[in-house]
Amino acid sequence: MQILERARELERAGRDVVHFEVGEPDFPTAPTVVAAGIEALSTGRTGYTQALGLPALRAAIAARYGVEAGRVAVTTGASGALNLLAQVLVDPGAEVLVPDPGYPCNDVFIQAAGGVARRVPVSASTRFQLDRGALEDAWTPRTAGVLLGSPANPTGSVLRCADLVAMRDFVADRGFVIVDEIYNGLVYDAEDALAGEDLLFESALTVDDGIFVVNSFSKYFGMTGWRLGWLIAPASAMDAIERVAQNLYIAPPSVAQYAALAALQAPAMAVHEERRRIFARRREVLLDGLASLGLSVAQRPTGAFYAYADIGATGLDSETFCERLIEQFGVAVTPGTDFGAFRADEHVRFAYTVDEREIAKGIERIGEALRSLG
Amino acid sequence: MQILERARELERAGRDVVHFEVGEPDFPTAPTVVAAGIEALSTGRTGYTQALGLPALRAAIAARYGVEAGRVAVTTGASGALNLLAQVLVDPGAEVLVPDPGYPCNDVFIQAAGGVARRVPVSASTRFQLDRGALEDAWTPRTAGVLLGSPANPTGSVLRCADLVAMRDFVADRGFVIVDEIYNGLVYDAEDALAGEDLLFESALTVDDGIFVVNSFSKYFGMTGWRLGWLIAPASAMDAIERVAQNLYIAPPSVAQYAALAALQAPAMAVHEERRRIFARRREVLLDGLASLGLSVAQRPTGAFYAYADIGATGLDSETFCERLIEQFGVAVTPGTDFGAFRADEHVRFAYTVDEREIAKGIERIGEALRSLG
Repeated sequence: MQILERARELERAGRDVVHFEVGEPDFPTAPTVVAAGIEALSTGRTGYTQALGLPALRAAIAARYGVEAGRVAVTTGASGALNLLAQVLVDPGAEVLVPDPGYPCNDVFIQAAGGVARRVPVSASTRFQLDRGALEDAWTPRTAGVLLGSPANPTGSVLRCADLVAMRDFVADRGFVIVDEIYNGLVYDAEDALAGEDLLFESALTVDDGIFVVNSFSKYFGMTGWRLGWLIAPASAMDAIERVAQNLYIAPPSVAQYAALAALQAPAMAVHEERRRIFARRREVLLDGLASLGLSVAQRPTGAFYAYADIGATGLDSETFCERLIEQFGVAVTPGTDFGAFRADEHVRFAYTVDEREIAKGIERIGEALRSLG
Repeated sequence: MQILERARELERAGRDVVHFEVGEPDFPTAPTVVAAGIEALSTGRTGYTQALGLPALRAAIAARYGVEAGRVAVTTGASGALNLLAQVLVDPGAEVLVPDPGYPCNDVFIQAAGGVARRVPVSASTRFQLDRGALEDAWTPRTAGVLLGSPANPTGSVLRCADLVAMRDFVADRGFVIVDEIYNGLVYDAEDALAGEDLLFESALTVDDGIFVVNSFSKYFGMTGWRLGWLIAPASAMDAIERVAQNLYIAPPSVAQYAALAALQAPAMAVHEERRRIFARRREVLLDGLASLGLSVAQRPTGAFYAYADIGATGLDSETFCERLIEQFGVAVTPGTDFGAFRADEHVRFAYTVDEREIAKGIERIGEALRSLG
């Protein structure tokens, strides 16, 4: 966030900045989705909806998973979903295991509910994901559950099915498993190309029906500022979720919900798929560029729009590296310390939410930076 | 909420229902605001904004109060504002004093932050508001602050300036004062007509600059489903508020923010003022109707769009009364028990968010109901 602000400051002062720090697709919302939003506005659909969202939208989301609509809550972004789940599942003083590195806001959702996020280090040896062994080691009597992400931020890593099954088996009656799938759909390797890896390309719900799943219209569906997401929960949890949703949010934004109905339909889906192909090409340009600079990415990212690169060889810690890059070379990159503590000083996150030319320009500038260090 | 759901159920089954239960204006958003929303959509303004909102909107809100824009946070509804303030101001285990009856979600915001809402009974003798004596009696070493509402839900009562000053003086260094002003602007008595009453027609900020103020575009500005509100806080609290806002919400809805800029301008304000006049006429029709039925309203409501009526004379508790009304007479009214515990059994809330003809029809039906009881 500080890097993003500094980058904007420099731009206002006339500097040209290459943005590798932005966790938001650079595409506008698909035209048919915008048109549906305009239609909703034009027809006065600006009142509160039901607390858990429009029945038609809940049904459309449910159909994607083959679950009952009653298990879907439409939320104010994935943020709303994570907040509701933390409020419902985390008792004061309880611990929730989260991977380190991971999405930094998770800690705050858990803290806001009175719990404690316990960061468990992950590395390339487990695809930057938790596994059963890590859970067994970290689980204590105070542990309430685990919050995973797949594809993950900041590493773009995807869970292995077998790991998820093993973790679910271990957690079983001990607590809950939440999988944040906000980057679901943004996966760039052909499934069969990675068949041997046994990766979870679908939702975690396909592995176990009792897992709490979070998703959003923000990333794959390109609707960040609309603030709309959803969760799928076991039927038994829905009354508690509805009560908290009514009280803390009243309802998710109305116009966004009508627009989201269009986001799930074929014309918009064609746009989203085209954008996925664009992200796939950018990933190649970025990864090739980083390799050419000698910056290693220990785990080739399967999805999301991030690469988590090791900058240990530069001899700089990640915050100093990022500060030098933005101040001296006009390249904005996020330090690993934004995502946790484990080896965070040796890593930075690149987001490929800019076009290929910008990526190439950024790589060139980083090349200069590395030469000036050498 | 149960009444609202039951009313919709009956309507789907073909029954005609008069709605006195809906806490949402029945007007669509003003045309120029809708047009600004469409313009924002058409020009692709669908990305995240700053966590505390668009600088132009913060500045426009700040100008209404004569405060610095840095003290304004645009939020996801007043709900977002109340949640942020509870998270920032309430430590686990701390108590917050709230009036009983009052807005029921307040308890949940405080609980979500780990605190405890302590309900303090209020009655017509203090205009259904807390006063210094009540605070002194209820304050304990665990009390962190007080959360007031003016105009208040469910009573429509407005704080007396002298009471607010006295409460602020008492709270001083002991804790915080939050005033939820979500119904600000929806006041129906001419200020000079009530001059002797010394009522707070303006914001509580005019009384003391250190008070935390919450407001929203939902009620006076007719933008419920857009989910947009704001808070004003002392400058020293803004860093903490921003950090929590970034983590729990990312940003308020973008299109709503662009639309809200238009909501503050003259053409929309003329629409809002016309609607206020409509609410004022409805209030008269409702209050006259209730009086004709012998249902007393102990404190004539000054603002909001509610009347809190005493049904003790019917011999029924409020939930039974409301159930009979909806089931046998097709009139939806909210039981006092939705708003607290103090004499809640003897009260019901009427919302005049339906037109005068519907109000008259409802009064007629309630007359039948009362005769069938007599």
